[in-house]
Amino acid sequence: MRAVDLIRKKRDSAEHSREEIDFLIAGYTRGDIPDYQMAAWLMAVWLRGMSRSELAALTEAMLYSGEVLNFSDLPGKKVDKHSTGGIGDKTSLILAPIVAAGGLVVPMISGRGLGHTGGTLDKLEAIPGFNVNLSLDQFHHVLRECGMGLIGQTKEIAPADKKIYALRDATSTVENIGLICASIMSKKLAEGIDALVLDVKVGSGAFMKHEADAVNLAEVMIETGKRMGKKVVALITDMDQPLGCAAGHANEVAECIEVLNGGGALDLRELSLQLSAWMFYLGERTKSVEEGRRLAETMIAGGQAKEKFRECIRLQGGDDEVVDDPGRLPASRNHALVASPSSGYITATNCEQFGIALAILGGGREKKEDALDHAVGLRFHKRIGDRVEKDEPLATIRYNSGARLAEAKALIMGNFFIGQEPPVNKPLIRRILGD
Amino acid sequence: MRAVDLIRKKRDSAEHSREEIDFLIAGYTRGDIPDYQMAAWLMAVWLRGMSRSELAALTEAMLYSGEVLNFSDLPGKKVDKHSTGGIGDKTSLILAPIVAAGGLVVPMISGRGLGHTGGTLDKLEAIPGFNVNLSLDQFHHVLRECGMGLIGQTKEIAPADKKIYALRDATSTVENIGLICASIMSKKLAEGIDALVLDVKVGSGAFMKHEADAVNLAEVMIETGKRMGKKVVALITDMDQPLGCAAGHANEVAECIEVLNGGGALDLRELSLQLSAWMFYLGERTKSVEEGRRLAETMIAGGQAKEKFRECIRLQGGDDEVVDDPGRLPASRNHALVASPSSGYITATNCEQFGIALAILGGGREKKEDALDHAVGLRFHKRIGDRVEKDEPLATIRYNSGARLAEAKALIMGNFFIGQEPPVNKPLIRRILGD
Repeated sequence: MRAVDLIRKKRDSAEHSREEIDFLIAGYTRGDIPDYQMAAWLMAVWLRGMSRSELAALTEAMLYSGEVLNFSDLPGKKVDKHSTGGIGDKTSLILAPIVAAGGLVVPMISGRGLGHTGGTLDKLEAIPGFNVNLSLDQFHHVLRECGMGLIGQTKEIAPADKKIYALRDATSTVENIGLICASIMSKKLAEGIDALVLDVKVGSGAFMKHEADAVNLAEVMIETGKRMGKKVVALITDMDQPLGCAAGHANEVAECIEVLNGGGALDLRELSLQLSAWMFYLGERTKSVEEGRRLAETMIAGGQAKEKFRECIRLQGGDDEVVDDPGRLPASRNHALVASPSSGYITATNCEQFGIALAILGGGREKKEDALDHAVGLRFHKRIGDRVEKDEPLATIRYNSGARLAEAKALIMGNFFIGQEPPVNKPLIRRILGD
Repeated sequence: MRAVDLIRKKRDSAEHSREEIDFLIAGYTRGDIPDYQMAAWLMAVWLRGMSRSELAALTEAMLYSGEVLNFSDLPGKKVDKHSTGGIGDKTSLILAPIVAAGGLVVPMISGRGLGHTGGTLDKLEAIPGFNVNLSLDQFHHVLRECGMGLIGQTKEIAPADKKIYALRDATSTVENIGLICASIMSKKLAEGIDALVLDVKVGSGAFMKHEADAVNLAEVMIETGKRMGKKVVALITDMDQPLGCAAGHANEVAECIEVLNGGGALDLRELSLQLSAWMFYLGERTKSVEEGRRLAETMIAGGQAKEKFRECIRLQGGDDEVVDDPGRLPASRNHALVASPSSGYITATNCEQFGIALAILGGGREKKEDALDHAVGLRFHKRIGDRVEKDEPLATIRYNSGARLAEAKALIMGNFFIGQEPPVNKPLIRRILGD
């Protein structure tokens, strides 16, 4: 078998066998197939597409390019959630404690933020001392002690994905449903989980702007997971506006603690409970999603989820007192209000731009190498459907350097759309697939 | 400007500006743009195509990636011919002496054979001592002395093409009309010529199997050349059977000498005269193609063309006595006949397979690194339309090692098609474009 012939095959729209995909992925991971051949193949895949069975083979080949974790010595099913990302999307820090407190194991391998979206690892690092770079042995230990753990991708996990992702980033072959699916699923299945709940975001702040695209990605991921013997469901959820009121790293951790204390923004609480409910159900902890929902509510009301979060922070080297005193999180020196330019109803937001506003203030990365300021953040005071009067605050900006404040303000102000009629309400959870 | 954005642009079917193409080609030639980005861009070009103005920009960018030769100190227009290649296609060794003898300058930079087609450089090297690796100064000297010279691509000539061609070969992005055109035209225009005659082959032994494809490639090359101020015509010519009777390196040189002596196969003589006629006309040596044709005939009949070939061989270090005694060329130890399996008329040949038969006997290359046996050759005794009786010879094989003789014989026998009715005759020159 030769890579050049397989490139030609995909270029000419033919379907690869499992052996051909194994040859490409194993050869590339070992370094036998050079970057330029993989780049040509990726572009051919981007333009010609892949069948579902090619995709399953690709996902498996990437998964088995590295170690598949095995937590069978720990009691309880292993479950996780993956979100395609958006603004203020912080449910991991809420649902992992809820689900671990409820008796399942949540071995969560997460990513960092890039562009307009935030990353779970970056949010966790807003907690002083929190270490996301555990070895797999340390990760195993944390999971054994508290049933949850939150780390970054290690060199042992899906090395093919790591290498291919970097190449896709440099060759404009990122935004392809098959390649996205293989990247996500190979990493998630490497966690050795029994079940996975997908939160596929749709809207102005999501990668997928249209529901049909989100559904398509969700279906592909569900089928790929099921082919590999996993339980998978997907919730298609709203990202036409930020989730919750807070964006920015320290800000978001504080909002998660609010929810774990029984309060917090209603949409964030609702989505966290729903995702937890599905994790309980798929993890066979409860007989129904409804029962899972009740268990999740109990874990918050009884304080067990909050204690679980405290335990995990401590085990991962963080300052666990933040759970009682969010004032210990990094705070910005300054704040500024963004006032409404007119009176009316918030009809929509282009919330991707809020993420960009955050990034230009230092609270996000434009390039992978950029440093982050965890204290920078946004707090939104208005949601879609709310009435707003001229000069009333739309958002508060928390910042350290004012260098690009005016630009950030303009981006936020310009991306709240105000009309004279209240808009039609769209549900937070649009569809549930795979159940 | 960033390469990743230009890859995305082509991926999404947009048109590049001249500046964008310059950025890509100059950056890649310098090594600032890595192979993997160029590979992804090439695959996007292969699948999305290029406009005529993108193609002209690409050709110019590749041309000016290196030196453009300047022979303005030599009297007479500079003209060349390029053929897209086939079996027994050896006209360069006939027309260059004719046209140089007629008073024009023919600065010919040629290539080597790969796969089923032969290369001019390899044929010349069948002449003992002939050196195709001249420096540009030596090339200039040879041209000044005798008006013709035949060398290989040097590192100064279109280095972008050299680098891109190697990458295309490894990434299955070779067979694309735009990329083929840019590769050919950038090298040919680097010769500093005023006019170019293209011999675009069509048929079972050509890269283009269908006349429409050959016409398309010809039109693209003509337009690209004309945009750059050059006179260009294309002859679409037959490659449904070998050109002339000989294939293989020493064999073909001997057949060229037959033509320069006033004999030789009629189709080879005819095509060489026609191509020479167009070169004389485009090079403003004659007022018409017909007059060019008469001048070409005169150059053969008067022996000036043969003397010009002798002079060139001597100037390039070769044994110029081969012109009078082709027995000085490398000869094979053995020969074998391929007999007709039945009686009838030759209706067609799949002549690409004859080239492969030659290659497996050592008279061609399967890989670039392979050594060549110049003595190996084929002589065809039957042409399309000829009557043949069972057991009458179709071809003679000249070989040294018999290891794969049976395989070669079967390939030749199996690719002469014999029927009971004589076929409809197809003209040698199908169309002339750009005149």
